[in-house]
Amino acid sequence: MNNVRPAAILLSGGLDSATVLAIARKDAFACHCLTVDYGQRHQVELEASKRVVNALGASSHRIVRMDLRAIGGSALTDDIEVPKDRKATTDEVPNTYVPARNALMLSLLLGLAEVIGASDLFIGANAVDYSGYPDCRPAFLDAFERMAATATVAGAEHGVRYRVHAPLLELSKAEIIRRGTELGVDYGLTWSCYDPSEKNLACGHCDSCLLRRRGFEEAGIPDPTSYSAGTGH
Amino acid sequence: MNNVRPAAILLSGGLDSATVLAIARKDAFACHCLTVDYGQRHQVELEASKRVVNALGASSHRIVRMDLRAIGGSALTDDIEVPKDRKATTDEVPNTYVPARNALMLSLLLGLAEVIGASDLFIGANAVDYSGYPDCRPAFLDAFERMAATATVAGAEHGVRYRVHAPLLELSKAEIIRRGTELGVDYGLTWSCYDPSEKNLACGHCDSCLLRRRGFEEAGIPDPTSYSAGTGH
Repeated sequence: MNNVRPAAILLSGGLDSATVLAIARKDAFACHCLTVDYGQRHQVELEASKRVVNALGASSHRIVRMDLRAIGGSALTDDIEVPKDRKATTDEVPNTYVPARNALMLSLLLGLAEVIGASDLFIGANAVDYSGYPDCRPAFLDAFERMAATATVAGAEHGVRYRVHAPLLELSKAEIIRRGTELGVDYGLTWSCYDPSEKNLACGHCDSCLLRRRGFEEAGIPDPTSYSAGTGH
Repeated sequence: MNNVRPAAILLSGGLDSATVLAIARKDAFACHCLTVDYGQRHQVELEASKRVVNALGASSHRIVRMDLRAIGGSALTDDIEVPKDRKATTDEVPNTYVPARNALMLSLLLGLAEVIGASDLFIGANAVDYSGYPDCRPAFLDAFERMAATATVAGAEHGVRYRVHAPLLELSKAEIIRRGTELGVDYGLTWSCYDPSEKNLACGHCDSCLLRRRGFEEAGIPDPTSYSAGTGH
């Protein structure tokens, strides 16, 4: 007999989604993880996703290749320079934005959910330290849930109502780090940097590194990340 | 001066989407085509998409690779047998259904639309001869439009309202063929078969071939398709 409910978890190998996996595990879901290789510069993130799954445990882990470079429009997939040391308070959407990224990622996750018979989807979207991405906001997540109910056989024929869990939505980076640390996440296994050095050290200056460094500082927890020289760490 | 509005067109290389491209061209859109290579068995479809673009004309054509085999759950990407000579009237969803396929395809198209500055998306979804796929129904397309408005910078920050055009939605296959023939579509360039022979001839018996053959019969237009022996054609 197996009463464990399956869930589909979007796992990037970053700090946020590792925390999400730990939360879903604590909530007793059987976690099926999906990592999307969308031609991002930071391939080390894919290796991080495997380390995180090995450390936290999961029922399955799939890596789906999707070459978004053909569509372009983002510094994470094109040869545009990654912005450094931007002011955190800027309202501008940075050029690391991938067009319709979360619509795409959640649609893939929805496909996985249908295959494994899950109605619970988990994503590490965050509306506080979200770098200005619109597809990390509650309005988007609500609209996606309504769309999902009509998009699949399970939803349209069998009345399955999908729920997009975004347990980090209202948390600051420091709160995320505290929560994950309580749940035993080893953040030394995770990867955040958009622009690693040739030796795969984090740059310490891209948006993602800045958020991560500030998060550990504010949480009062030592940052296990190995940064390139000259970050002041 | 350029007053031509850009549009993002989902183009599979099949009969339906070739007709959609012809309709969008007639409606004076600058057509940017997106073909998704999702690890389908019928790679000949990708070649057909290039032939269709060359014949009808387009402002751009991108092919995006996305390996859905890692997610599985469909005879088009797994090693499950493609069903043959199914009754057309069955209500059952066939195993050629790709989980959340149109949510995924439209999300990619939405990303392209944002990159090219388009708010018009075209898809060959069809609710009449649609083989029972829920994501070809008006309820899905409406929900996707609402989701799209929240998913992108253009929608969330600049008030762009995306419109999903599905000009074939209420047409029978015969009506689609008549419409495309009026617009000069050469259906000999298009590809429908889910299960081609080694010599890349259409099988004549999968759902897609059956719909195509019946469509030409009902339209009273000669079918230019080369089928394998034994189809009665």
